[in-house]
Amino acid sequence: MKELMEPIRTLVDFRRGVVNPDRVIERKTSDMQGMYVDELALKKLLSQGNPFIYQIREVNIPQETGHIIYSTTIIYPGKVGQEYFMTKGHFHAKEGTAEIYFCLEGEGYLLMQTRQGRVSAIHMKPGVLGYIPPYWGHRTINTGNKEFVFLTLFPGDAGHNYQIIQKCGFAKIMVEEDGRAVLKDNPKYTPLNG
Amino acid sequence: MKELMEPIRTLVDFRRGVVNPDRVIERKTSDMQGMYVDELALKKLLSQGNPFIYQIREVNIPQETGHIIYSTTIIYPGKVGQEYFMTKGHFHAKEGTAEIYFCLEGEGYLLMQTRQGRVSAIHMKPGVLGYIPPYWGHRTINTGNKEFVFLTLFPGDAGHNYQIIQKCGFAKIMVEEDGRAVLKDNPKYTPLNG
Repeated sequence: MKELMEPIRTLVDFRRGVVNPDRVIERKTSDMQGMYVDELALKKLLSQGNPFIYQIREVNIPQETGHIIYSTTIIYPGKVGQEYFMTKGHFHAKEGTAEIYFCLEGEGYLLMQTRQGRVSAIHMKPGVLGYIPPYWGHRTINTGNKEFVFLTLFPGDAGHNYQIIQKCGFAKIMVEEDGRAVLKDNPKYTPLNG
Repeated sequence: MKELMEPIRTLVDFRRGVVNPDRVIERKTSDMQGMYVDELALKKLLSQGNPFIYQIREVNIPQETGHIIYSTTIIYPGKVGQEYFMTKGHFHAKEGTAEIYFCLEGEGYLLMQTRQGRVSAIHMKPGVLGYIPPYWGHRTINTGNKEFVFLTLFPGDAGHNYQIIQKCGFAKIMVEEDGRAVLKDNPKYTPLNG
């Protein structure tokens, strides 16, 4: 019989995320090329030190059916042109799997999209839990002026598909207009079957 | 094609749990008969108004593969004799599924046990996330003097098996001794194959 896995105790700082992660993934401005409308603004940021956009703090959980993988994400405050700092966004490789985002600190949006281009957005603040049903791609955006921190959880066998978003983009972008976050059509969006 | 499920926004008050649950489950002292060592103390509590032991605030999520079901639990402070207020505890019907408990408020223990009677305990305080691997039964215990509040998450197809715990009990109990929480052998424990 297979050896049973031992329980894990993870300490999460509500302001900084997982305290002792097994792995830290950091995304800099250079990792986000092609994802923002304003390419000149992105180039300018690159020349100004290529700042970090977000950081994921992961815990080792088996990528297998029956497990729930969890990590915390910090998105730093900032903009590329008028667009706020955000994650790359993805669908799941096994698309019939959900994901949960639970906000601990800061504020922002959980932006979701179906393969057909239907969009839904949830405003996140501490205590807001966003449930991403199966088949919805998703991205998070920091629209506040401090770090946006949240816990994410998804089935162990979900996997990631970044290609759809890299190819098509999201149908909507979140931009600052007159000091407010506004959802607008993405001029660079290419529908999947378009 | 099956209609896609819409995203859900759930507000969680870190001190009280899910603000607008679809369903509230309340367990009173009378629901816990047979689960405590000190049966006289339990009878006395019943005669003193049958107080609530814990409350679960649930959100409607499909009980299907690929989903993640979530809810919050509040365990009230108190004791039955020397034993602290606690949940009934359960295994999953589909035993190869994990569960996550994330503490928001108060303190207590996440007590886990295998079918073979091996025990593990995690001390919970705000920010502690306990990962219950597949095949481990689990119960939570409020060892503090205020409400112990946590978020729970498990795969949509996990299901519940309360029978094993009802029949065997847990191998360990958490009792107050000299003002401290102490894990001791449960004199009423009956091993599954015993």
